[in-house]
Amino acid sequence: MSKIRVVIAGFGNVGRGVRLSLEKQPDMELCGIISRGVERVKKEVRDLPVLPISDAAAWSAQLRPDVVILCGGSKADLPKQGPEICRYANTVDSFDNHSEIPQYFEKLNSAATAAGHVSIMSTGWDPGIFSLERVLAGAFMPGSRAYGFYGLGPSGGLSMGHSDALRTIEGVLDARQYTHAIPEAIERVRRGENPDFSPGDMHTRECFVVLAPGADPAEVTRKIVGMPGYFAPYDTTIHFVTQSELNDHCKGFPHDGLVVASGRTSEGNATLAEYRCVWGSNPEATANVLVAHARAAARLAAEKKRGAFTILDIPATYFSPLSRAELLQHWM
Amino acid sequence: MSKIRVVIAGFGNVGRGVRLSLEKQPDMELCGIISRGVERVKKEVRDLPVLPISDAAAWSAQLRPDVVILCGGSKADLPKQGPEICRYANTVDSFDNHSEIPQYFEKLNSAATAAGHVSIMSTGWDPGIFSLERVLAGAFMPGSRAYGFYGLGPSGGLSMGHSDALRTIEGVLDARQYTHAIPEAIERVRRGENPDFSPGDMHTRECFVVLAPGADPAEVTRKIVGMPGYFAPYDTTIHFVTQSELNDHCKGFPHDGLVVASGRTSEGNATLAEYRCVWGSNPEATANVLVAHARAAARLAAEKKRGAFTILDIPATYFSPLSRAELLQHWM
Repeated sequence: MSKIRVVIAGFGNVGRGVRLSLEKQPDMELCGIISRGVERVKKEVRDLPVLPISDAAAWSAQLRPDVVILCGGSKADLPKQGPEICRYANTVDSFDNHSEIPQYFEKLNSAATAAGHVSIMSTGWDPGIFSLERVLAGAFMPGSRAYGFYGLGPSGGLSMGHSDALRTIEGVLDARQYTHAIPEAIERVRRGENPDFSPGDMHTRECFVVLAPGADPAEVTRKIVGMPGYFAPYDTTIHFVTQSELNDHCKGFPHDGLVVASGRTSEGNATLAEYRCVWGSNPEATANVLVAHARAAARLAAEKKRGAFTILDIPATYFSPLSRAELLQHWM
Repeated sequence: MSKIRVVIAGFGNVGRGVRLSLEKQPDMELCGIISRGVERVKKEVRDLPVLPISDAAAWSAQLRPDVVILCGGSKADLPKQGPEICRYANTVDSFDNHSEIPQYFEKLNSAATAAGHVSIMSTGWDPGIFSLERVLAGAFMPGSRAYGFYGLGPSGGLSMGHSDALRTIEGVLDARQYTHAIPEAIERVRRGENPDFSPGDMHTRECFVVLAPGADPAEVTRKIVGMPGYFAPYDTTIHFVTQSELNDHCKGFPHDGLVVASGRTSEGNATLAEYRCVWGSNPEATANVLVAHARAAARLAAEKKRGAFTILDIPATYFSPLSRAELLQHWM
């Protein structure tokens, strides 16, 4: 059987993770990379074609992808790239702006349906695996309520979005933000209280900040803790560090999270379901989930399906390289 | 929209749990019960038709089920009932004899396909939710290996199969068996060792036994700890108790379990995924999972699907009563 031909669109940390993951897949092959920065990528990747993402006629003819995995960001890249690239191939992306998912779905669904392609959107671990676990908990434990917590380990979870937000503040040269779950909040959910939380009840935020020369720490602190949405609703701790301290202390992209749901099947019989994941590298984790969805996209396309899909629309067998016989015999 | 018409086949603890669960479902209604012991069930259920399971012509005409939920046992009931009842309606069952799943699938698939019905088999929490979590972990964390542990809480998990096995021993009047996970084994998996366990490395067994008058405890102990498959491979503790002590101490049907899988996305970047569930009542938990699958069976049938299915074949949306718009907006 011929392998699923995959192209990576965008070669940052997630794109690199997709490349690593594809090496482990028995039924898929990486055929090339498309990028806005062809020259930059070519310095790093010498054994594969690297083509400009803007020249769809060229890359689609030369690389003939079954699936393009979009590894760009949700803010600027994906809302534009998803509906464009699905005209040429099936796509998979990790669009993670929760509040805009319905609108993005509509736009992508129209474009992919018109093109006769499959576009799986918003996958990774949240949205993605966590979405699936929330829906399963709701379906299998009627009346339960699912909560998501992030950063349960001692160092917390690195939030790229909040780190970026810190770096937009005047006087901040570099920064990392770690999210911490509040253990007492998790225990309240586990006890079945199904509490009404405000965001600050569930998580705290820890910032490591390198000041620009001459910046006033009190002024920077004031700006951080007052930042609407990002920090104002949270108990926020700030450590001012040197660039080399930041580099030493804040290595890699660790993250972890928990979906927890509690309910009862009858008076006196409580239920609890928890899904927990811990990722040494958040972008590599996202990459592996994207790759499993690329397999699903190819299979859905082979069945002449078209339009936009999420993880909620796809049976587990579609993600797995294993045969039906093997799954029935060893995995049920 | 008309509600999904459900019939319960077999009214034991799981059947009672299905009835409770159906009361919470906005889109389903219980239309009747079919049973081998109609008179027994009628004493407990006065507000619903109760018909003999053997008279398929009568119950199928009178109850007109969209789905029959089979609540019998895997040993004697389901292998016979599944292929028979699927001739008259879509079915859902919790067949849990792991080693016979491939053969049962073949038999059920042939019968359901010929009849033009959908038969979802082997659902519940294991096989069922745990099967799904094993396959997802394998797909999303290539190279990981998933392990199942049971009875993590201090009292362990009640195993009906092992309790039944104890009661077959001469000199045993009544008994309950609790399974305990070995914490060190879980920690080895969490650390990413991916160890090769024998069954006794993962679990211990704790038995509460009421002796028959005149029975010799030493002789009963010898028979229990030597029982192949059930107890011989395990570190087994036996408590001899009175019937009233057993009744007091061993209330209800609590159970819990953990699927844990560990791997790495690249050198130095470890991953861990865990699914844990805790059920105050094991049969009620199974019942709720069966009911969500009955919804899926009705939807698959409405799409003119036919044949046998497992949880691995079904998208999460099919289990949920929520609309697509609601799922996209609030659950992704």
